[in-house]
Amino acid sequence: MDNDKETVAVIGAGSWGTALALVLADNEHRVQLWLRNKEQQKEINEQRTNSKYLPGVKLPENIQAYVSLEDALEGAETVIIAVPSEAIREIAKDIAAIIAKPLTFVHVSKGIEPDTHKRISEMIEDEIPSRLLKDLVVLSGPSHAEDVGERHPTTVTVSSKNMKAAQKIQDLFMNKHFRVYTNPDLIGVEIGGALKNIIALAAGISDGLGYGDNAKAALITRGLAEISRLGTKMGANPLTFSGLTGIGDLIVTCTSVHSRNWKAGNLLGKGHKLDEVLENMGMVVEGVRTTKAAYQLAQKYKTNMPITEALYNVLFNAVNPKDAVDQLMGRLKKHEMEDLVGILSEQMEQR
Amino acid sequence: MDNDKETVAVIGAGSWGTALALVLADNEHRVQLWLRNKEQQKEINEQRTNSKYLPGVKLPENIQAYVSLEDALEGAETVIIAVPSEAIREIAKDIAAIIAKPLTFVHVSKGIEPDTHKRISEMIEDEIPSRLLKDLVVLSGPSHAEDVGERHPTTVTVSSKNMKAAQKIQDLFMNKHFRVYTNPDLIGVEIGGALKNIIALAAGISDGLGYGDNAKAALITRGLAEISRLGTKMGANPLTFSGLTGIGDLIVTCTSVHSRNWKAGNLLGKGHKLDEVLENMGMVVEGVRTTKAAYQLAQKYKTNMPITEALYNVLFNAVNPKDAVDQLMGRLKKHEMEDLVGILSEQMEQR
Repeated sequence: MDNDKETVAVIGAGSWGTALALVLADNEHRVQLWLRNKEQQKEINEQRTNSKYLPGVKLPENIQAYVSLEDALEGAETVIIAVPSEAIREIAKDIAAIIAKPLTFVHVSKGIEPDTHKRISEMIEDEIPSRLLKDLVVLSGPSHAEDVGERHPTTVTVSSKNMKAAQKIQDLFMNKHFRVYTNPDLIGVEIGGALKNIIALAAGISDGLGYGDNAKAALITRGLAEISRLGTKMGANPLTFSGLTGIGDLIVTCTSVHSRNWKAGNLLGKGHKLDEVLENMGMVVEGVRTTKAAYQLAQKYKTNMPITEALYNVLFNAVNPKDAVDQLMGRLKKHEMEDLVGILSEQMEQR
Repeated sequence: MDNDKETVAVIGAGSWGTALALVLADNEHRVQLWLRNKEQQKEINEQRTNSKYLPGVKLPENIQAYVSLEDALEGAETVIIAVPSEAIREIAKDIAAIIAKPLTFVHVSKGIEPDTHKRISEMIEDEIPSRLLKDLVVLSGPSHAEDVGERHPTTVTVSSKNMKAAQKIQDLFMNKHFRVYTNPDLIGVEIGGALKNIIALAAGISDGLGYGDNAKAALITRGLAEISRLGTKMGANPLTFSGLTGIGDLIVTCTSVHSRNWKAGNLLGKGHKLDEVLENMGMVVEGVRTTKAAYQLAQKYKTNMPITEALYNVLFNAVNPKDAVDQLMGRLKKHEMEDLVGILSEQMEQR
């Protein structure tokens, strides 16, 4: 292998972790994929498939699956953390207890922690001491694992406090099918990725109610406005929300049949109860947890977030989904630019 | 009928004209719908349907169809022009030859004229003398006629040089299902509506090639950036492109099965020839004409519009669609924010 080929640990073999392992393997890196389940390990190492999470995809020989975290981290210079947001702290703590020298970490999860309101990178910084944390990079964007598994064209964004580190990760992943851009706005990239799941749940509800494409497009548009409003107050550059990790990711999550958050919303719109929906999904629905965090953040930052608020009431206060969406669509007539003008004014003040 | 109920002429009984006639009829206005075909007239007036353009929808009794333009305009205070962009000049000329007093015109078409590079409102101003043109309003937004026909929630935007006139049109159309916002940025509203059809053609090609949701989301995101770039140079407020008539309309046109431009692109992506596609569609594909206009405008304003350029080469220079899309997706890695930062800088300079 070339000098620029390295050993990469991918922590988590769900759909997205497995798809990213495939991209890295295509780029001829040695991929050490960590997972908990011994049968899944056996299937990957012997049959070269991960049929539960990425069915129909043949995994190259340079992906090796491990159930031991020590083994998966052995010799790795870069660690990709690909677990659901609620498992981030625990896995980061476990990794910190194992490694001896500072490593570059890349996280690919999307969420905000309720109550602490921390972004994923902040959660990782809490759990991994700075002497072991060489660099921390986020990779985000419109990227369903299924498409990446089929090597369909995909574009994502990397961001970091250290843009040199982001560029290194750009080089690590970049190939013909998987295009990687950089954006220095770490806060905006993380917030956009997290909050779009709320709008995806709302879009799913609208579709579940049979409300059609016009209603969904309006929800996505107004959703982008409220994400931008909150994100800007939290320190993001409003322009990031017009990019791949903002509107790009929002579109794919709200319109793709692969989206888990959309699916969960769709079932809610069809009249199923939340408990029932979450049980049937069998996978984590990040948007539920994020709705709680965003609802709290909207209050903290005194930000108008009508879609988030409506969804919070559906999820946690047993409000009927149809009533919530009808109320959203039927807001009083007002100047379309009002929200946007507000964003621009704030942005100007900050200069 | 109440005092605020008026007689409205709707010129053009295609899908969108018919759907808007339905909204106005629901609001208890007297609607005089003009069309050329006597059988279609008979069907609307006797069977209360327009089965070719809005199948499955029952049209209320207060819609009356006419083949005589004089009859359709008789007593009307407001004229809704709902014909394809290439028929705008001729119909405006015909109307000007008939009316005696100034009327309020509303146009609901989306396009830019090749060679003159005029927006629809500018074409209408060319053809209707100012003494007959009381006000001119544009109505635009994410709104497939089929959804409006089923009275699914829809939100649109109206704009005008005279915002009082825009508000009057807002009141004319506003109802429980059809929500109307205002935006004073006439240029941005018209440009966004016109240029999104280019991106819809490109998104259709990507889908026709089987490229999946990630690729389409990236195209839509980069498409929004290039629409904003050109629109800003033409005098639009960049924020309009983040609203209903920008990203909202772009999403619905690129992701809905009802979109004619998407359908045409889809057939191109599957290997059909342009002539063949246009013949099979049986309806006007605005994006083809607009691509030509936008290609010329990109040169005039020295604006980087890679998607428009690629599509122009597919439509008019027989470039293979797959080669064009692959080249678009495989552009050199570059800073994601570059385009956006450019927009913001220009916007700042203008203040």
